[in-house]
Amino acid sequence: MKSPVPVNGFACKNPMDVNSDDFFNAAKFDMPRNTMNKLGSNVTNLNVIQFPGLNTLGISLARIDYAPFGVNPPHVHPRATELLTVLEGTLYVGFVTSNPNKLFSKVVYKGDVFVFPKAMIHFQMNLDHDKPAVAQSALSSQNPGVITIASAVFGSKPPISDDVLTKAFQVEKKLIHWLQSQFWENNY
Amino acid sequence: MKSPVPVNGFACKNPMDVNSDDFFNAAKFDMPRNTMNKLGSNVTNLNVIQFPGLNTLGISLARIDYAPFGVNPPHVHPRATELLTVLEGTLYVGFVTSNPNKLFSKVVYKGDVFVFPKAMIHFQMNLDHDKPAVAQSALSSQNPGVITIASAVFGSKPPISDDVLTKAFQVEKKLIHWLQSQFWENNY
Amino acid sequence: MKSPVPVNGFACKNPMDVNSDDFFNAAKFDMPRNTMNKLGSNVTNLNVIQFPGLNTLGISLARIDYAPFGVNPPHVHPRATELLTVLEGTLYVGFVTSNPNKLFSKVVYKGDVFVFPKAMIHFQMNLDHDKPAVAQSALSSQNPGVITIASAVFGSKPPISDDVLTKAFQVEKKLIHWLQSQFWENNY
Amino acid sequence: MKSPVPVNGFACKNPMDVNSDDFFNAAKFDMPRNTMNKLGSNVTNLNVIQFPGLNTLGISLARIDYAPFGVNPPHVHPRATELLTVLEGTLYVGFVTSNPNKLFSKVVYKGDVFVFPKAMIHFQMNLDHDKPAVAQSALSSQNPGVITIASAVFGSKPPISDDVLTKAFQVEKKLIHWLQSQFWENNY
Amino acid sequence: MKSPVPVNGFACKNPMDVNSDDFFNAAKFDMPRNTMNKLGSNVTNLNVIQFPGLNTLGISLARIDYAPFGVNPPHVHPRATELLTVLEGTLYVGFVTSNPNKLFSKVVYKGDVFVFPKAMIHFQMNLDHDKPAVAQSALSSQNPGVITIASAVFGSKPPISDDVLTKAFQVEKKLIHWLQSQFWENNY
Amino acid sequence: MKSPVPVNGFACKNPMDVNSDDFFNAAKFDMPRNTMNKLGSNVTNLNVIQFPGLNTLGISLARIDYAPFGVNPPHVHPRATELLTVLEGTLYVGFVTSNPNKLFSKVVYKGDVFVFPKAMIHFQMNLDHDKPAVAQSALSSQNPGVITIASAVFGSKPPISDDVLTKAFQVEKKLIHWLQSQFWENNY
Repeated sequence: MKSPVPVNGFACKNPMDVNSDDFFNAAKFDMPRNTMNKLGSNVTNLNVIQFPGLNTLGISLARIDYAPFGVNPPHVHPRATELLTVLEGTLYVGFVTSNPNKLFSKVVYKGDVFVFPKAMIHFQMNLDHDKPAVAQSALSSQNPGVITIASAVFGSKPPISDDVLTKAFQVEKKLIHWLQSQFWENNY
Repeated sequence: MKSPVPVNGFACKNPMDVNSDDFFNAAKFDMPRNTMNKLGSNVTNLNVIQFPGLNTLGISLARIDYAPFGVNPPHVHPRATELLTVLEGTLYVGFVTSNPNKLFSKVVYKGDVFVFPKAMIHFQMNLDHDKPAVAQSALSSQNPGVITIASAVFGSKPPISDDVLTKAFQVEKKLIHWLQSQFWENNY
Repeated sequence: MKSPVPVNGFACKNPMDVNSDDFFNAAKFDMPRNTMNKLGSNVTNLNVIQFPGLNTLGISLARIDYAPFGVNPPHVHPRATELLTVLEGTLYVGFVTSNPNKLFSKVVYKGDVFVFPKAMIHFQMNLDHDKPAVAQSALSSQNPGVITIASAVFGSKPPISDDVLTKAFQVEKKLIHWLQSQFWENNY
Repeated sequence: MKSPVPVNGFACKNPMDVNSDDFFNAAKFDMPRNTMNKLGSNVTNLNVIQFPGLNTLGISLARIDYAPFGVNPPHVHPRATELLTVLEGTLYVGFVTSNPNKLFSKVVYKGDVFVFPKAMIHFQMNLDHDKPAVAQSALSSQNPGVITIASAVFGSKPPISDDVLTKAFQVEKKLIHWLQSQFWENNY
Repeated sequence: MKSPVPVNGFACKNPMDVNSDDFFNAAKFDMPRNTMNKLGSNVTNLNVIQFPGLNTLGISLARIDYAPFGVNPPHVHPRATELLTVLEGTLYVGFVTSNPNKLFSKVVYKGDVFVFPKAMIHFQMNLDHDKPAVAQSALSSQNPGVITIASAVFGSKPPISDDVLTKAFQVEKKLIHWLQSQFWENNY
Repeated sequence: MKSPVPVNGFACKNPMDVNSDDFFNAAKFDMPRNTMNKLGSNVTNLNVIQFPGLNTLGISLARIDYAPFGVNPPHVHPRATELLTVLEGTLYVGFVTSNPNKLFSKVVYKGDVFVFPKAMIHFQMNLDHDKPAVAQSALSSQNPGVITIASAVFGSKPPISDDVLTKAFQVEKKLIHWLQSQFWENNY
């Protein structure tokens, strides 16, 4: 990490100092995560931030846990396509295209695969009211980024002007203020 | 358009048939547009859809007209950075970063330039209550795409399940239904 | 598949004809595969060939089943990095760098992740003598390709000249002939 | 600017130290420039050199002022397509293709747009003998570069051998020497 | 060539129909070319136009023959770096950087290698007055393109306006007319 | 070489300190190399490691000398297509495609050109039993890498487990041990 050779803003080890552990991560991707939050979901990222050896390799992973009826809310990965595999349970998944906004959605089951093209708004929801669900996603960048729509729009620091949001969402200022006063907990 | 040689999904003329007009567009980018809509703004795109000669060239333009206090609401270009120049008036502009969601905003004046990095949520608003404003943007793709957040989330066809949106925005179903019943007119 | 708009050599549907099923694949990635072959392994690819909707999206998947002591033999993906997650069992995994040929290997367990950088020779082996193992891999291309070293070198059609192979492997011609006469069954 | 993390040869700020001003440039792109030079034109660049925040974002701008009958002489951007909008006046614009050298030219008016594909020789001239003209260009690189043909060929430091230029331009050495002795003032 | 699958504007064979000859070209790169022209040089290109199998592979070649004192005049490859090896003789080679225009030149001998970075103006001249010279160049694109400066500027069809060229080269119109009336034979 | 601005892991000089020699390499590519080794071949690389000025330029070279009947054994360039020109002699050249493994081979003569697509296993052999042969190759990366199949598989440090290799090559452990005990001299 003290390397004098940064690449893409991340440290890049001297090839002489690299060993097998640089290509390995004990991600415990088999272990359930805690989904006790307002959204009922938990995303465990495994990208260049958690796993520096992925730098320049153009790929990363995420494990997503869903409480019964839990939601991974509408979000965008600005730099990656996401390819999701259902490991457990039944999910309602979908994404919205560039304007005009068509929704492509599907109910998917254990063993199914669904793809969310790069930088499209997408979401998943556990359709089971009494069982958790689990998915694993592959992302086509070592540094995909994530922008959760609700928290980015209503929970940014500092907040976006209420004049902008009032017009954008065609609602009263009072509602915008109420939304902006929520605690926008992310599931990442 | 009947070319047998498509590239990127768009027709590509036989080089023998190309002439000066293929590199030209009478965009009338000097002419004010009609901003009489709920948002008080109007975006005139000039990308590969309107100007086929831009195919493979990696760049496009947009002219943006703002009514007094008009808003170009939060949106994303999934495939392009946007570099905006203020042609007339005073704008409040900003974008929100990947999680955690920091807002970078600024009041910008005639002749100023501001950049919205690729696939970040961004917006502009005319701060003048009695004069129109105008901006011209350059985008780093011939096919940048645009996803208006409010209409993509609440106005997609078919709609996103209200269960997803209720959890995502932490509001009551009634409000989601009300939002989904709005007419989501885009300014493009 | 009869589209007039091919991209990357694969058919690209008219956007008007696209529907949710184009982004979906009932891959049954939860179901064990048959590993009754000489190698004791079975790779189920899910790339642009099996899942046309992945075209241009830059990502694909594979499920790998291992019989007890089964081997996914040394091979190369010419166009992709591979990021492997252990779903069941214990694997010995590794890759060899460009000359000079350093081996980076590791014993990895359920929930662990290991990365094989683009176009490096790599392999996996189930270390359990009495239990199957399973892994899922993400690959950084929709069309990664695979070159199994042993079958490419000794089982190509037509065969590589025995003069080349004798010098390359520093063995007698008889052995080369014997190797070339094997049935090089791939596990794909 | 003292960042330890350079990218593309330019300093890259620590994300923690970034603020709104890093995405902003008071370019005064609304203000006329001085065109009192031999060419009668003035190009104001706004790329990664003047605006470090553009680094990695793949786009830049230029404002071009033309005196009456002023010329932006034949030049090349080695790393960018240029998309020009006429802000004021009437321009004769054109570019020459790769060998064989076809000229694509056009007279363009206020509000028109013309594109010069990457690394092609191109030029503009104000057709008005008594009014200035103005254009704004978008370029598909944060670091497009510019090579003015006449000054690169006849005004390089040190000069190109007169033997090369005599043969290349099929003229007498005396003329080459005369051209090489000119003061090759650029309009950048 | 009648393939229904074009890529990059060039036909792409069905993989089933590909054979060894598609990767082969009897270029006769060992045979001297005729350099009896005004420039005293002859460039034999071997790129995707002459060798369709190079499509998508990102590389091409050229053989350059020089008469005694022959010149390969200042030119640009808009899409490629050129890496030149001297096969016979002694060459004076050089390129000019983006503005400000620095010349990097060198006298190079049999067995030497010199690189001309992408889209920079470059040239070579045989320094021997009584012996031919030969070079072979590798180019970093299957379709590098070439723009010979003198013929592109003075010999385009149709011609560039003499008003533009008079200002650009700071010479009298008579000289521009004389240059435009030359026969601009290329050595390709 | 002490530059504070590394790019791609290689030092990048300050533009002010660059001179003509940075673009030059006295490679002596006209001089025969010593082919007295088990393979009867010698590869002289000229890439970013030997010639730092090639960094970011996307191209490199190699000279290959073959003793009579000498072999450049099956190998892979993970990051480059190779375009080979026969300078002297007669070569048997070929490459094997991704699974299923088709061999494309050809006997090529002085002046012929053959292309090995990126990351495919390929080889060359001098067909003359009494004369040396020479080839020059261009590679589509400044840092192509090379993985010699036999030494990577049987000569890596540390060695690959004999259990993996026994299954992969379908031979007895004794033979694997014998192969692993060879001295795997590379010809680079």
